[in-house]
Amino acid sequence: MIELVGFDGDDTLWHSEGYYQAVHAEFEQVLARYLDLADTRVHERLLAIERENLHLFGYGAKGMTLSMLETAITLTGERISATDLHHLLRLGKEILRHPVELLDGIREAVTEVARDCRVVLITKGDLFHQESKVARSGFGELVHAVDVIGEKDEATYSRILRRHGVDPGDFVMIGNSLRSDVAPVLALGGWAAHVPHELTWELEKVEDDSVFDAHPRFRAMTSLAEVRPWVDELVGAGG
Amino acid sequence: MIELVGFDGDDTLWHSEGYYQAVHAEFEQVLARYLDLADTRVHERLLAIERENLHLFGYGAKGMTLSMLETAITLTGERISATDLHHLLRLGKEILRHPVELLDGIREAVTEVARDCRVVLITKGDLFHQESKVARSGFGELVHAVDVIGEKDEATYSRILRRHGVDPGDFVMIGNSLRSDVAPVLALGGWAAHVPHELTWELEKVEDDSVFDAHPRFRAMTSLAEVRPWVDELVGAGG
Repeated sequence: MIELVGFDGDDTLWHSEGYYQAVHAEFEQVLARYLDLADTRVHERLLAIERENLHLFGYGAKGMTLSMLETAITLTGERISATDLHHLLRLGKEILRHPVELLDGIREAVTEVARDCRVVLITKGDLFHQESKVARSGFGELVHAVDVIGEKDEATYSRILRRHGVDPGDFVMIGNSLRSDVAPVLALGGWAAHVPHELTWELEKVEDDSVFDAHPRFRAMTSLAEVRPWVDELVGAGG
Repeated sequence: MIELVGFDGDDTLWHSEGYYQAVHAEFEQVLARYLDLADTRVHERLLAIERENLHLFGYGAKGMTLSMLETAITLTGERISATDLHHLLRLGKEILRHPVELLDGIREAVTEVARDCRVVLITKGDLFHQESKVARSGFGELVHAVDVIGEKDEATYSRILRRHGVDPGDFVMIGNSLRSDVAPVLALGGWAAHVPHELTWELEKVEDDSVFDAHPRFRAMTSLAEVRPWVDELVGAGG
C-alpha cells in the first residue's frame, strides 16, 4: 500500500531556480565593472564559496545572498563599492519576495493524489521563506504536513517517515532532484519519481543519472500528471 | 495529566544572546569610523531594520547579518569600505560557529523531566543553525522531537500539539521569552513557565510583564531545576 506521497517544493511545484539564475546574471554584470569576466570564472567561484558555506548556512536565499556578497568582496580584492554591494543585497531580498508561480497542471496533479493518499511537502531551504511560499501557494489546505528540513539525506527522510508512522516501502517521493528527492529515498527502500525541471542548480546535479533508470522502485516522468496513475499502479500491484 | 513538556533552546538551554550582543558592540565600533555614535542611534536603527526585514528573513543569525550589512551601508550613506563590510560578514559567520554552551544544571533538569514526560525542543531561528546546535548540545538523544518554527504564535503551537496528539491543557512550555514561550501557550489553554535569562533581545521584550503573574497556569522560575517539581505538582493535582 502507498500511504504517503511526498512532493518537493522548489522547481517541482513552483518555479525557483530561474529567479536565482536571473540574480546570478545580474551579479556577473556588477562584477564586470571590477574584473575581466573572461579571466575570472565568477560563476565557479560563487559556487565554490556557496559549497564552502553550506555547512554554516544550509540551503536557501539568505545563505546564497551572504555567499554572493562574500564572493563579490573577495574577487574584487575588497575594492567593490558599498553602492554595488547594496545592489547585490537588494537582489537577494528580491528572491525572498518573488511571487509563487506554480508549474503547469500542478494543482490538479496534487489534488488527484490527495484524494486517496496523505500528501506532504518535503523541502529544504530557509524555513521562513519556504513556509511563506507554501502559504502563498495555496497548498497548505491540501497537504497533511509541511516538512522543511536542513538536508535531504537518508537520516532525515527516515525521521520524517517515523514521525508519520509510515514504512519506507509505503512511501513515494516526487521531485526534480535525483540527488535530494530520489537517491536517499530509494536507498531507504521507498519509491521515487523524478520530474526534471529545465533548470537545475549545479549543487543538485549528480555525476551519472543513468544509475537510477533500472531501479525497480524508480520512475522517470515528464509531468506530475503521471504521479496519480503510477500510485494507482503501485497500489494495484500491492506495491 | 501533563503529557508533553516543551523547552525553548536559545538562552533557555544554551547561551545565545550574548554572542549577538558582542557582535553588535563590534558593529558599533566599525561604524564609529564613519559617524558620530552619539548622534546616530546605531543600535535603534539596526533594530528598526531587523524588525522591517523580519517578514522576509524570519529569525536567526543569517537574517541578522544581512540586516547588519544593510544598516551599515545605509547609515554611512554607502561610504563604508568593502573591507569593513567583509569584517561584518565574518562576524555574522562567527555567530553561526559559536560553541554550544549549556546553561548551568540544564542537562540534569531536562533529564529529570524526560524520565516521565515526552520532551520536545521548540525553537525559532535558522533551521540549519538550530539543528546544528541541537546536534552539538547532545540533547538529540534525550528529546522526542525538535521543532524549529518560523514564529512562536498560537497557530504554530496549536499545529505542533495536534501533530503530537496532545491537548493544550496537557502541555507545559518552558522558556526565557514571555512573548514567545509564555503568552501564546497560555492563550491556547496550556501551562507555561518563564525562566528569565540575564540578556533579552529587544524584539522579545513585552511592555508589561506583570500581566502574567496572576495567571493560574503560569509559573515564574529562577532556574530550570524548578521544572520537574512543578510538573509533579501539576500531575498530582490532576492539572
